[in-house]
Amino acid sequence: MRGGKAVPTVPAAELERWSAEVLQRSGLVSVDARMAAQFITLANLRGVDSHGVALLPAYVQRLQAGGINPRPNLRLVVDLPGLAVMDGDHGIGHVAAARAMEEAVARARRVGAAFVIVQHTEHFGAAAHYAMLAAQNGMVGIALANGDPTMAPWGGTTPLFGTNPIAIAVPGPEDDPVVLDMATSASSWGRIALAARRGEKIPRDWAFDRHGRPTDDPNEAIDGLMAPLGGHKGYGLALMVDVLAGVLSGSAFAGHVPFKFKEAGRPQNVGALFAALDIAAVMPLDTFRERMADLVRQVHASQRAPGTERILVPGERSAEVRKRREREGIPLSEDIASDLRRLGDEVGVPFPG
Amino acid sequence: MRGGKAVPTVPAAELERWSAEVLQRSGLVSVDARMAAQFITLANLRGVDSHGVALLPAYVQRLQAGGINPRPNLRLVVDLPGLAVMDGDHGIGHVAAARAMEEAVARARRVGAAFVIVQHTEHFGAAAHYAMLAAQNGMVGIALANGDPTMAPWGGTTPLFGTNPIAIAVPGPEDDPVVLDMATSASSWGRIALAARRGEKIPRDWAFDRHGRPTDDPNEAIDGLMAPLGGHKGYGLALMVDVLAGVLSGSAFAGHVPFKFKEAGRPQNVGALFAALDIAAVMPLDTFRERMADLVRQVHASQRAPGTERILVPGERSAEVRKRREREGIPLSEDIASDLRRLGDEVGVPFPG
Repeated sequence: MRGGKAVPTVPAAELERWSAEVLQRSGLVSVDARMAAQFITLANLRGVDSHGVALLPAYVQRLQAGGINPRPNLRLVVDLPGLAVMDGDHGIGHVAAARAMEEAVARARRVGAAFVIVQHTEHFGAAAHYAMLAAQNGMVGIALANGDPTMAPWGGTTPLFGTNPIAIAVPGPEDDPVVLDMATSASSWGRIALAARRGEKIPRDWAFDRHGRPTDDPNEAIDGLMAPLGGHKGYGLALMVDVLAGVLSGSAFAGHVPFKFKEAGRPQNVGALFAALDIAAVMPLDTFRERMADLVRQVHASQRAPGTERILVPGERSAEVRKRREREGIPLSEDIASDLRRLGDEVGVPFPG
Repeated sequence: MRGGKAVPTVPAAELERWSAEVLQRSGLVSVDARMAAQFITLANLRGVDSHGVALLPAYVQRLQAGGINPRPNLRLVVDLPGLAVMDGDHGIGHVAAARAMEEAVARARRVGAAFVIVQHTEHFGAAAHYAMLAAQNGMVGIALANGDPTMAPWGGTTPLFGTNPIAIAVPGPEDDPVVLDMATSASSWGRIALAARRGEKIPRDWAFDRHGRPTDDPNEAIDGLMAPLGGHKGYGLALMVDVLAGVLSGSAFAGHVPFKFKEAGRPQNVGALFAALDIAAVMPLDTFRERMADLVRQVHASQRAPGTERILVPGERSAEVRKRREREGIPLSEDIASDLRRLGDEVGVPFPG
């Protein structure tokens, strides 16, 4: 199954263990390395490969160049019953995000609901994972973060806002949460880059060229701007996420965020905001789950439009991918596998297989 | 200025006073009538005429038919430091919403941040207004609500979700907050109905016909479905708002919400969720305002795309309209003015002018 043109497939546990060792060799303490590796691999498990091990070489580069602080002193600089602010101390974002949501969940357990803001942090991967931490605790979870500027304000051409994701998770009818995780852009760099590699055109509402004109050429898009989701509303959402995660946290915002892949030695200094709300304070969790089951049933039973095979609730497809990949392993494209082999050789932790 | 084909213009204070009297004659206690009238007129002041006095005849009809309870017993059924649940007792939504945000602000003042959920309530008008209450108190405000099903799940044709709005407001550089208020639909019934009246076509991403096919015919759209903002992401947002406002509050959700304009005698039983976060607990409010000024400056200074005259932050246009209408009065279309004259005659409170 490995090497050549076949798609290499790696068991998730093995990929996670390897990722943790790579991060530890790059300076992280063991517990942080294992936690970051868990969230990085979880992205692959859920089929969000753009936020998984494909980013590991960039994280390691940033650790080596000084952009990411390998030994951050995570501490609460504001500590109230319903609100905390955590200083991320420029450490890897996944660990700060998970710790922040743990703080939010603990506070929500005591006072019903809480917000935790993280300041001075780095890319945290998939926002869904932290919202899901709350859902696993029987809570509503909300996670959002700002990032590198790739979108302009509506009507403009100066990149000021990231694709600033918003994730919301709640317990579902059974084990899997219902979880929305959406960039506030119409599409993603990953999909545009894929179209460029394949020589395909992209829909004209995904991106603008550098002059702010809609384009169907992925190469013009890469030199240009991401389009906000649905026009001015996506711009409004991206701006508000920048306010809540960047302005409010005391971190970088708008045009001030450096590009994580271009300036490896410079802290991104982004921010994030998390919220948890304890459902059991409102109604028995089982009642909530029954009501969610009703909602999910109604969605699944909807009349279908021409050409639709299945109608899904947010997070349903990712949960299916996760079950399959837990059984079958995580498939890696050959170019990513070869990047990871090279990374493993560099840091002295040979890539499995 | 009044009557004939000219657009009648009414001073805001006069319109508000008249609206309050109409609501009081329809059964509301004076303090509730005045508060509801204030938020209804505020929509007109800010240029959101679809959520202003144009809805007053429908509210009065619902009050008369028993859909809206004129004398609700608003009370907290959950009362924690960071979370409360208010029973709206099927009263008019504006009053419950404002009271709920006041509760959220008071809690945020004590513990840093808080959520307040309203159950068993009615249409509350423009979500922005309640988020703005928090911003006026130096806080982040979030408001969302579910409503009549006019959108199907993505790929489906069964209407399950309302245009479920999301509003976020924060203090701005000066007096006016920066405030986003967006339906999770691509457009609004108001704009589609206007196109139908004018015999104009609509963009093909605004709506579907009853079979779930995109349509540019506003009449097919009115018999069909609203399209979610940006496709599956808008569907995901609408569903999550339905979960947070409807499922979580113990109110109606998904296909269970009756239509406010069609079933005047039946409580809508919708829900809403509010959050407030005290900025002063994180950083001095003046520092926040300075950072917002930087962000707004960057937006205004953005290079402009071809055809763009101005680049605005969310809420900026509404603030401008408000200043103008505070000076010049609120212009009403002749058909709305004539509806209001008829309503005034019915309830015995002659419409001004």
